[in-house]
Amino acid sequence: MKKSSKQSFTVIKNGTITTPAGFVACGLASGIKPQGKPDLAMIVSSKLAAAAGTFTTNQVKAAPVQVSMKHLQASKGQAQVILANSGNANACTGVTGIQNAKETARLAAKATGCKKDSHVLVCSTGRIGRPLPMDILRNGIAKAAGELSDKKGLDAAKAIMTSDSVHKQVAVQIDIDGKKVTVAGCAKGAGMIDPMMATMLCFITTDAAVPPKVLSRCLIEAVEQSFNRICVDGDMSTNDTVLMLANGEAQNNPLKSYHLSLGAFQEALNFVTLDLAKKIVLDGEGVSRFVEVLVKGAYSLREAKIAAETITKSALVKASWCGGDPNWGRLMAALGYSSARVREELVDIYYDGLLAVKHGLRSDCPDAKLKKVVAKKSFKITIDLHLGSAEHTVYTTDLTEDYVTFNKGE
Amino acid sequence: MKKSSKQSFTVIKNGTITTPAGFVACGLASGIKPQGKPDLAMIVSSKLAAAAGTFTTNQVKAAPVQVSMKHLQASKGQAQVILANSGNANACTGVTGIQNAKETARLAAKATGCKKDSHVLVCSTGRIGRPLPMDILRNGIAKAAGELSDKKGLDAAKAIMTSDSVHKQVAVQIDIDGKKVTVAGCAKGAGMIDPMMATMLCFITTDAAVPPKVLSRCLIEAVEQSFNRICVDGDMSTNDTVLMLANGEAQNNPLKSYHLSLGAFQEALNFVTLDLAKKIVLDGEGVSRFVEVLVKGAYSLREAKIAAETITKSALVKASWCGGDPNWGRLMAALGYSSARVREELVDIYYDGLLAVKHGLRSDCPDAKLKKVVAKKSFKITIDLHLGSAEHTVYTTDLTEDYVTFNKGE
Repeated sequence: MKKSSKQSFTVIKNGTITTPAGFVACGLASGIKPQGKPDLAMIVSSKLAAAAGTFTTNQVKAAPVQVSMKHLQASKGQAQVILANSGNANACTGVTGIQNAKETARLAAKATGCKKDSHVLVCSTGRIGRPLPMDILRNGIAKAAGELSDKKGLDAAKAIMTSDSVHKQVAVQIDIDGKKVTVAGCAKGAGMIDPMMATMLCFITTDAAVPPKVLSRCLIEAVEQSFNRICVDGDMSTNDTVLMLANGEAQNNPLKSYHLSLGAFQEALNFVTLDLAKKIVLDGEGVSRFVEVLVKGAYSLREAKIAAETITKSALVKASWCGGDPNWGRLMAALGYSSARVREELVDIYYDGLLAVKHGLRSDCPDAKLKKVVAKKSFKITIDLHLGSAEHTVYTTDLTEDYVTFNKGE
Repeated sequence: MKKSSKQSFTVIKNGTITTPAGFVACGLASGIKPQGKPDLAMIVSSKLAAAAGTFTTNQVKAAPVQVSMKHLQASKGQAQVILANSGNANACTGVTGIQNAKETARLAAKATGCKKDSHVLVCSTGRIGRPLPMDILRNGIAKAAGELSDKKGLDAAKAIMTSDSVHKQVAVQIDIDGKKVTVAGCAKGAGMIDPMMATMLCFITTDAAVPPKVLSRCLIEAVEQSFNRICVDGDMSTNDTVLMLANGEAQNNPLKSYHLSLGAFQEALNFVTLDLAKKIVLDGEGVSRFVEVLVKGAYSLREAKIAAETITKSALVKASWCGGDPNWGRLMAALGYSSARVREELVDIYYDGLLAVKHGLRSDCPDAKLKKVVAKKSFKITIDLHLGSAEHTVYTTDLTEDYVTFNKGE
């Protein structure tokens, strides 16, 4: 464990979602994926836990997204089991899809001894438009319940992978009222990958005692500064889901909204979600650059966000990064066609610390120096619009030939 | 010349912008492009002509765009000369850029005997952020004025090319009040090409007599159904410009807004702009597919446009076309995250005439049949939202590895 001097939390080496007290999990190959790769993950809390979730804002929502949203509402923010499969998204599957998602929740409740179906949250990721293979899942869910262990958090993280090249997990520990509290998470995602793949999932466990309403606010805050600030290709999936369970096994005084340690808990949770979000970007399809884009000096937060997101969705901007080209003209063009207010003659652009554009004009910084920055695996672009005080950051990637090859077909 | 049975116009084989009576032009290598390729075009009307223009809506407008807009305003829609250079965009060049653009207009007026600077419209395309090489242009403009000819329309079309692989021109003839009227155009563009290239230009000439206000309305209408419906990469340039001159040499009765032949003139102009717009898409960087996307049954025209444009800007959708993959799940996801209203259970999707998605669900059309459609060089996707009666078409391309390679760097 190493503790940062600035942070109130410590990162737990090789921590998993079963590192917090009172969680068991497993991951296995049920047979959904034809290649025999792990495709079914189960996470179970020792007791009913406070639960929160954030879901895709896509109007086309996969069946498990719809069912999990309803379960969280019906239970008023309580859950005990998370069931997730990869290899099939159960999206664009109509009424049958909803029935299948509900049945998997029922089966998981029965297999784990969870009292209500609505205390099971379900997620799917994989191809869109194919019915869930229910025979395989019936066997798989029964088998998974028998394999649950507090040593198998890593297996769960692996079972939700689709075209991810590495599993993604992190755990941190904080001190609340003299009690050790652990927050852990795992995630999958690397763009909206493979034909009809539907994408990003994240599961967070903690043994903190947190009332459901507070937990939900904390999760929304954490997602806002992490998963809502990453962009691989600008495509939003039908299945994006972040779920969090807080089971209270750490025995801390419940973190009500006026609790002094709530800030430390939020900071730890923010670290977990941002760490996982960055891992998703770094594992982006065919990615060769990790780029932080900061737009500051915008009129409003909304416009700062629009400007940063327009840049990180520009195919031309992203292709130039791939070629190591400090092509600030494309940044200026993208700023100009964004709906954020921009005054060309006020714009400053920095590549890492180097001023490339001053008051809308080429600075005297030599191209060779800027090229060195863009040649790096990771760099930061700062754009100052000099119109106000709002700022927004997006973490993104370049656009590579490999991305296209990856997404061309089956 | 061949005449369509439906159309009131005939296409003139090898017609150029000097096919309409009373226009001369030229194109030459002035030395802006280091490789000695043609880079300067001049188009001159025998007399002061009615003039209209549409310009980029990018907030960052190149100097020549700003100057041409002001000239059109000052002259109340009259002009005699169009001067265009490739190899340098004169964008993001500040006050010096404006001064240089004005000076090129002044030089062109002097060299051609045009009475007012404001009767010269100027355009630039090429790299952003570099000052115009004024010494080269001074010589070039003088030389161009000496080379003007009614045989050199093709040379002008070639001199505005940047990374275009072919020149783009078309001419049609219609009959108005027993007079032969010709409408011709040339264009350049293939995405926002090359590092800092700034993009689409189109020049249209006609010998029709059309009052400036009517001409402007006709041009706006024609651009709306052509250049405003194409999408290569979704990046809008700082230099996009369409200019049109109508010199009245055909001696027709002026096409006032109540003239019975105005519809035929509009139809001919629409054909010219759509033909050139499609040629730009077909010449898109690294393109292997030409795709027409029609969204119908939308609540409103605005939402039809948003839905169609969201699809044609999705990297995932476009990459799947490149692979010949009929990946309708990505279309559903893109529709869902667009801000157009969509009800999943109502959506039908056709590939050419084949129904792939019915009421939001996979149809019984075999994948193999759909794959045959997407394997073609050119196909049409029709999406029926079944929510209203508004529709919109966008002409677009796939996203290929070659596009990325092309746009990576210098």
